[in-house]
Amino acid sequence: MSKAEKIYSFDKSMELFHRAARTIPGGIYGHFSPTITVPGSFPYYTAEAKGCRYLDVDGNEMIDYMCAFGPMVLGYRNKTVDSAAATQQALADCTTHPGVVMIELAERLVELIPTADWAFFGKNGGDMTTYAILAARAHTNRKKIVMVRGHYHGVAPWCTALGFGGIIPEDHYQIIQVDWNDLDEFEKVVAEHRGDIAGFIAQPYHHINFGDQIMPAAGYWKGIEQICRREGIVLILDDVRAGFRLSMKGSGDYFGFEPDLSCYCKAIANGYALSACVGRRELMNAASKVFFTGSFWTSQVPMAAALATLSELERTDAPGRMKETGTLLGDGLKELGRQYGLEVTFSGPPAIPFMRFTEDRDFYWQQIFCSEVTKRGSFFHPHHNWFISTAHEQEDIEETLNHAEAAIKVVKREI
Amino acid sequence: MSKAEKIYSFDKSMELFHRAARTIPGGIYGHFSPTITVPGSFPYYTAEAKGCRYLDVDGNEMIDYMCAFGPMVLGYRNKTVDSAAATQQALADCTTHPGVVMIELAERLVELIPTADWAFFGKNGGDMTTYAILAARAHTNRKKIVMVRGHYHGVAPWCTALGFGGIIPEDHYQIIQVDWNDLDEFEKVVAEHRGDIAGFIAQPYHHINFGDQIMPAAGYWKGIEQICRREGIVLILDDVRAGFRLSMKGSGDYFGFEPDLSCYCKAIANGYALSACVGRRELMNAASKVFFTGSFWTSQVPMAAALATLSELERTDAPGRMKETGTLLGDGLKELGRQYGLEVTFSGPPAIPFMRFTEDRDFYWQQIFCSEVTKRGSFFHPHHNWFISTAHEQEDIEETLNHAEAAIKVVKREI
Repeated sequence: MSKAEKIYSFDKSMELFHRAARTIPGGIYGHFSPTITVPGSFPYYTAEAKGCRYLDVDGNEMIDYMCAFGPMVLGYRNKTVDSAAATQQALADCTTHPGVVMIELAERLVELIPTADWAFFGKNGGDMTTYAILAARAHTNRKKIVMVRGHYHGVAPWCTALGFGGIIPEDHYQIIQVDWNDLDEFEKVVAEHRGDIAGFIAQPYHHINFGDQIMPAAGYWKGIEQICRREGIVLILDDVRAGFRLSMKGSGDYFGFEPDLSCYCKAIANGYALSACVGRRELMNAASKVFFTGSFWTSQVPMAAALATLSELERTDAPGRMKETGTLLGDGLKELGRQYGLEVTFSGPPAIPFMRFTEDRDFYWQQIFCSEVTKRGSFFHPHHNWFISTAHEQEDIEETLNHAEAAIKVVKREI
Repeated sequence: MSKAEKIYSFDKSMELFHRAARTIPGGIYGHFSPTITVPGSFPYYTAEAKGCRYLDVDGNEMIDYMCAFGPMVLGYRNKTVDSAAATQQALADCTTHPGVVMIELAERLVELIPTADWAFFGKNGGDMTTYAILAARAHTNRKKIVMVRGHYHGVAPWCTALGFGGIIPEDHYQIIQVDWNDLDEFEKVVAEHRGDIAGFIAQPYHHINFGDQIMPAAGYWKGIEQICRREGIVLILDDVRAGFRLSMKGSGDYFGFEPDLSCYCKAIANGYALSACVGRRELMNAASKVFFTGSFWTSQVPMAAALATLSELERTDAPGRMKETGTLLGDGLKELGRQYGLEVTFSGPPAIPFMRFTEDRDFYWQQIFCSEVTKRGSFFHPHHNWFISTAHEQEDIEETLNHAEAAIKVVKREI
């Protein structure tokens, strides 16, 4: 390590969190919740962000490996995107009628994604996954939706597990769950409910929490596609998390299959609120019968930002670049593991990676490691997949590997 | 009429709509859909907006009585709000952790709304109405939700009518509908399902489409409140449409009752995408058990915009001002009706009004009238309530009344 080590503290974050807990249920909610990480070892509030870094409220500078849980793909405050947004803002944003930019963006997605003949826009990823299951039901005139156990499709009751507040068994009456990568189970379910299944929805691979990311088995997606076609089941790809990080053509193209509907969100506009569902021609009529809208769904600024984001991603071969950067990070972490005798498993696509210690049975080492890395200036989430952006440069990765080396020494000492 | 009459045409709007229909299901969707108004008589796309006016893609200047279906409350491109948003944008928007602005906004709403002890934020109004019913179920450990027939709470399947694409009877298994203003029916339902009703959700008054707005009957809300308290039913106010247009303290305060949960959206940030649910202390624990989040839910720019919007609304006594402006419009329209022998019913609160011809049985006169007004430069929706903003000045209303006079002459001629 070249520099004297500085260990961050997060007193102001903690103090603000206690203040927040008085007027916000849980203080900070959902997947942003700080209670899912080690208290006192992670920042809770962002003051300023630029490129791949942010300053937290304690003034700590952090290299960010969460990228706002995905949306930031070109770096915070990307000039090209923010300037396209500002230009649009100076004309019109949320207005009584949509803007031409909505048509342009639909046409752009149709041009970009091989299975897109049309596009539809919302605000949340979950708006689009729900829209997709409604379109599948409208198209097939069937009720049942098959989803993969543990896949995340947002917070709508149909896809939220029983046990969370307010979810009732009735929410899942027409939902069937199957295991990831298990074609046999899907075949069995299809045989059992032949003619009743409207759609199959899944993420392109298993973005599991607290575990290695699980890629599709050889032949899995082609098998799913064949069964869906044979049975008239609408094949829905939830590409909210992986979209535009693996391929500009969508993760269907990346993994070699053709979804009927694909849902995008996170990376589509570099942090401006937008989501999209794209679909094949055959589904367009059914999709137009779904009543689905929201107060800000035709807002023009996020659409202008999306057009600029997509162009920048394409121009810079962003997926290729994030793969390289993620591989650099993964190789470095694995090498550190070898050096210090703590084998590292680096899983998932390098642009959306996750690491853990292979022999760490209960995520105890992981908790120590991630909090020690974070206290040195690189935010590693202990159990959620990470995200790489095109703003992460080689020097950032090297700096992070220094933080990681110091952290792994602490792990060695403590376990 | 002082000026030579100019009749707008909407050729470019029509042309763009046909282009859009190739890559967007329905061309323009939801409540923005142009197919619900008379083709050729209304603009479909906005090019630029400022104050209470916009330019459509044909270059027609329009005084806007839809205000983006509600969000625009201080005028398009309001300097104070946009500058607060830009200041925040230059620091951080959508980031890995929320900003302090989330706490400040929660505290602001708690200070403003008498029944708010806490606040929670999302993107769509429908995010918040769904969150509210989940919180009600979590709080009561009961399943059933009572809603009012025809009230609009967003596009989630639980509140969308059968017949729309993809909606299945299972979506409504635990939903009971009662008539607006019918306390007896509510009492009957409560007696029938005693101990099973988690929540009652309603808008503050009946924002009906294709009809006069129906205000709460004397004693209705107090009666609802009493029954809910007696039976342990969570009282949910969907204030998404009326919020901050009638009173800065929320429509519960305005109509003299105390909701347990209130949902806000539209006017809260003058067009920046944000929604909020506020609630009483007793509900906070249950609310924290609801798993609810989204990719852009902690974005800081809309929250900064909301703080600025609320201050501006308060500083300018916006609800008082919009009431005056709406009354001016309503009085003018009623006077025109008298003058031309076509009685006008002006219903709803003046800030969120609706007019129709009292003797117009099938909205045929209304279609002619609204399209003729619109072709002259004031956008009147023929069957959805209108919205007033603080950017509407006396001269704008006078100009609109000139458009209305010309239009009413056409109605006289055609009927």
